[in-house]
Amino acid sequence: MAKREKSQPTVIPRAAASRLSRYLRYLEELDRNGVTTTSSQALGAALGVTAAQVRKDLGYFGQFGYPGLGYKIAQLTPELRRILGTDKAWNVALVGIGNLGTALLRYKGFSAHGFRIVALFDASPALVGKRVEGNEVHHVDEISARVRECNIELAVLSVPGEAAQAVADRLVEAGIRGIFNFAPALLNLTQEVAYVSIDLALELEQLSFVVTQRERESGL
Amino acid sequence: MAKREKSQPTVIPRAAASRLSRYLRYLEELDRNGVTTTSSQALGAALGVTAAQVRKDLGYFGQFGYPGLGYKIAQLTPELRRILGTDKAWNVALVGIGNLGTALLRYKGFSAHGFRIVALFDASPALVGKRVEGNEVHHVDEISARVRECNIELAVLSVPGEAAQAVADRLVEAGIRGIFNFAPALLNLTQEVAYVSIDLALELEQLSFVVTQRERESGL
Repeated sequence: MAKREKSQPTVIPRAAASRLSRYLRYLEELDRNGVTTTSSQALGAALGVTAAQVRKDLGYFGQFGYPGLGYKIAQLTPELRRILGTDKAWNVALVGIGNLGTALLRYKGFSAHGFRIVALFDASPALVGKRVEGNEVHHVDEISARVRECNIELAVLSVPGEAAQAVADRLVEAGIRGIFNFAPALLNLTQEVAYVSIDLALELEQLSFVVTQRERESGL
Repeated sequence: MAKREKSQPTVIPRAAASRLSRYLRYLEELDRNGVTTTSSQALGAALGVTAAQVRKDLGYFGQFGYPGLGYKIAQLTPELRRILGTDKAWNVALVGIGNLGTALLRYKGFSAHGFRIVALFDASPALVGKRVEGNEVHHVDEISARVRECNIELAVLSVPGEAAQAVADRLVEAGIRGIFNFAPALLNLTQEVAYVSIDLALELEQLSFVVTQRERESGL
């Protein structure tokens, strides 16, 4: 606690943060099945980690378990949502309304977890002014004005790689707090902006890598 | 080397494997710009890691640099492709031809890196028999026959969470070597199958987590 008072922020490892989301998914599933309590053993088993790891991950944020009982699902679930920030709705901008962008717009998983795509942007004259899934597409030049106007905190980027940095710069300038990047590009961003990047081809390449390594190990 | 002779496979950390893809992307970019050599310093700087990390990552696979010169791009590029298995084309099955599946099918990045989606599967009577982007959609019951027939080694899963495990089981049974899963589900797979999973909502949640933590740290 002394450390916190010196305003030294606790750094939560990325893998631990990702597990928090997975614990929450598992708790939601248990709840749907009418289960009311669980344990660090059970949470760990569901994710393939140890019970000690579960306790360590949750321990960054407080003491949630009861000795001999484990975790009360009705209590831990809202705590995890609060920690993850999904106890509130987030306004999200989507930049790049191509095939991937349109699929992301239609993707039910975002709104189911409180992420509302409230503004669409593209640079293409063929798209600007059109409605996609009921939302008007605005020109990227309007990013700054609309991000402020609609109180948008997060942005999803599905633009071509070569356009990504310029769009990211506009979003940051407009005060965006986090960027979820699908463009195959390494973005140079200020530390203040949270950042998650997925390069789909690169992820698929990880599969071909593992399969290739195994074939070579086994002499195929 | 003694370890290798005992057929003890070298375990390459996942983060290192992911960087191999990123080094390759950067080398390709340098090549497009007419650059012919680079260094572990430059590669590290591009990815935000140290030169020592670059040398360690590449060192798993051999000695590629030249003292005082660095890496010859025309030499390291094909070596990385060979290591990653992208020096050959891969036949890929796509299971689940909804919005996300259709976007993945249209996504140019896969074919650009040698991944050819050669078979489409879905369980919906409304889709089976239809053509999407020039490919006929087959029923999931045909997975086994077609995976063998078309020599398919990798599969992309974009089915609903509740259908994912059953589809994965069929793919594994058919002899698939790697699965790229977009379904929001924890899959239980045999160790022999390479596995990459992306839950898009969960990734976006990582942004809300970081933004929320920062707001709390700064007392907002």
